[in-house]
Amino acid sequence: MSRKPEVNAARLLASVADFAAIGATPAGGVNRQALGIEDRAARRLLAERALARGFTVFQDNIANLFIRREGRDASLPPILIGSHLDSQPTGGRFDGALGTLSAFEVLEALSDAGIETDRAVEVVAFTNEEGSRYSPGCMGSMAFAGAGTMADWEPIHATDGPQLADELAATLAALPEAALRPTGHAISAFVELHIEQGPILEQEDVPIGVVTAVQGTKWLEVVFSGVAAHAGTTPLEFRKDPMGAAAAAIASLQSAVMPADPEARLTVGRITAEPGSINVIPGSVTFTVDIRHPDAAILAAMDQHVRKECEAAGARWDCDVSVSQRVNMAPGRFSPTITGAIEGACKALGLKSRQMVSGAFHDALFINRVAPTAMIFVPCRNGISHNEAEFVTDAHMISGARVLLNVVEALG
Amino acid sequence: MSRKPEVNAARLLASVADFAAIGATPAGGVNRQALGIEDRAARRLLAERALARGFTVFQDNIANLFIRREGRDASLPPILIGSHLDSQPTGGRFDGALGTLSAFEVLEALSDAGIETDRAVEVVAFTNEEGSRYSPGCMGSMAFAGAGTMADWEPIHATDGPQLADELAATLAALPEAALRPTGHAISAFVELHIEQGPILEQEDVPIGVVTAVQGTKWLEVVFSGVAAHAGTTPLEFRKDPMGAAAAAIASLQSAVMPADPEARLTVGRITAEPGSINVIPGSVTFTVDIRHPDAAILAAMDQHVRKECEAAGARWDCDVSVSQRVNMAPGRFSPTITGAIEGACKALGLKSRQMVSGAFHDALFINRVAPTAMIFVPCRNGISHNEAEFVTDAHMISGARVLLNVVEALG
Repeated sequence: MSRKPEVNAARLLASVADFAAIGATPAGGVNRQALGIEDRAARRLLAERALARGFTVFQDNIANLFIRREGRDASLPPILIGSHLDSQPTGGRFDGALGTLSAFEVLEALSDAGIETDRAVEVVAFTNEEGSRYSPGCMGSMAFAGAGTMADWEPIHATDGPQLADELAATLAALPEAALRPTGHAISAFVELHIEQGPILEQEDVPIGVVTAVQGTKWLEVVFSGVAAHAGTTPLEFRKDPMGAAAAAIASLQSAVMPADPEARLTVGRITAEPGSINVIPGSVTFTVDIRHPDAAILAAMDQHVRKECEAAGARWDCDVSVSQRVNMAPGRFSPTITGAIEGACKALGLKSRQMVSGAFHDALFINRVAPTAMIFVPCRNGISHNEAEFVTDAHMISGARVLLNVVEALG
Repeated sequence: MSRKPEVNAARLLASVADFAAIGATPAGGVNRQALGIEDRAARRLLAERALARGFTVFQDNIANLFIRREGRDASLPPILIGSHLDSQPTGGRFDGALGTLSAFEVLEALSDAGIETDRAVEVVAFTNEEGSRYSPGCMGSMAFAGAGTMADWEPIHATDGPQLADELAATLAALPEAALRPTGHAISAFVELHIEQGPILEQEDVPIGVVTAVQGTKWLEVVFSGVAAHAGTTPLEFRKDPMGAAAAAIASLQSAVMPADPEARLTVGRITAEPGSINVIPGSVTFTVDIRHPDAAILAAMDQHVRKECEAAGARWDCDVSVSQRVNMAPGRFSPTITGAIEGACKALGLKSRQMVSGAFHDALFINRVAPTAMIFVPCRNGISHNEAEFVTDAHMISGARVLLNVVEALG
């Protein structure tokens, strides 16, 4: 005998708090980077809660974690909901975790109400969405969608040393209760709930964003090479200083690209100088450039602009320059069927919503290539994320989970 | 019975090669940073060779290493000659080592010839001249001259982790044969032989530089602080990006300071961004600025210029900025008595010489505060140093050592 399923608000909020304690930072954020000890602890906690509720737990060979609640017809491809559990080194409590835990709350709410869905419903926590320790990000969803191959990634070393193949094996071994399944099984749909990571919903006081598309992203690595020499004795005319070239290139890109196009994003998040001595002109300077745009053609033009500016700076400072592409994620347009279901859920629940384009890439961008997909955004304070100050109100968390539950009922 | 002492050229060249093997890098340079394992190995080799020749070995509490050859009158303050044995992370074979090993060759030449000097002659290898692992550099000579206190330095951590106090204790313990002596004993003079680390002597084909002064040096650390945020979702108007500020400040300093004054030097050798993720706008960017000038007033004005430029860039990018001084070495003028003795030696040996100002700071800059001091420069190829490509011809090494021996005879 079944009744109308309802999100258990207290349980959802407690669950978010429980996971925020894993890798908690003094400033109130989390450091739970992919495949590290804290990431494994979070996976274990979720798996144990799943087994306690009688759900089945699976892993695939990139350590994507799946929690399955059976439906009437096991032959139908399941509905997939969820996000990721890994975080940035100084990340927030909600990026990834909120979507994963809201999805798990949906499974529990269905069970509490004794609902039997036609299709099975599966919760997923994709591996290494952030890409902060092991680049590129979204490895789990790329592998699931056949957009990347393990062979390319296994040799990668983390910024703090370990090799991906080793930590992947250790992560899989740490969850023996989970049966191994092939990567990329058939699914009927994917819905990912996530914080907006931008300021729009909060500013317009809209609780739900219906994400119709994700902007494209390219990660470039720029290396300027000059000649390391003594800081005190080398006159200007003898210098080949890659720091001069790097600073000129970054300054010119920073002052030109974003002011010219409000939809464009350009960020230099990482920079190093070698050998890195105070009194040595660097022999080389390496930095990353993250560029994004919803329009694939404009993104390609931005890529060319970055290369031209770097070559010009290298020539001015008599340094060699190399620009290599680390990540190239094309913009994506989501399924009108799924966005329609999200808008229907908002109407049914009397929640205001607005369509929007995601400024961040997400696992949903890749899953969108193999199944009808869309995303639900909830507001975050001041649009701040990838930061320990990241914050979402209880009311917005609860509204988001209610919409996700309603969508699953509609699609199930 | 004594004869005219002569530098043993083969022995000097072999000695330089032997020490270049300690911390040798694949590219032909050395990585023998202060107080590390390789630095200790070099100190041990020199001490063992000293004891084998019947010289006495001492250390003081900052691990300055002294090798003493007695003179007729032990009550007279000794003549001090030497340099340092530590190197940059990707340093050359000659910076520091050549001056220390030429000084040791002088002791051996005096003993070979059975010369008895009135004063004792001591060779010194000063601790941590380079400052690449533990900032500031010239710790050993600063402590010797009372220009710095151990208490300030002991808590300092190396760029690769260890604390100075611990590695200092381990370095002292690794040489039990050396008697501990008080820091800063009386000396009658100090003469340091060193590579020029600049292009002038080679270009003018002059084998010996008589160094009359050392330019002043300031090391500044600049920290721009903004707000870490998501690279994809944060529009320009919401950004407080310290990378924009840092790049603008560095680019403007690089393009203004040195072109305006051929005697000025400005170098940014180290830079980091936190948290250092490709897809996160940094919360802070930290870099160093090394500025130098022979004129103290102009150096002070350069310091003010750096601070103004950084404040302006911080204001433009809505970031906080802090500029802190890490090192402040005033310009120094050497003793005419000692420079006269060096010029006399060059005349006596028929070697061309020219007076010059040192672009690099050296231990001699500090010892100059407590005793008559000067330096002997020899040419290095293309003026390149702090680089594995650093190179000095055999003929120039031999000429330098012969001048040093002649000066010691004159002062002894």
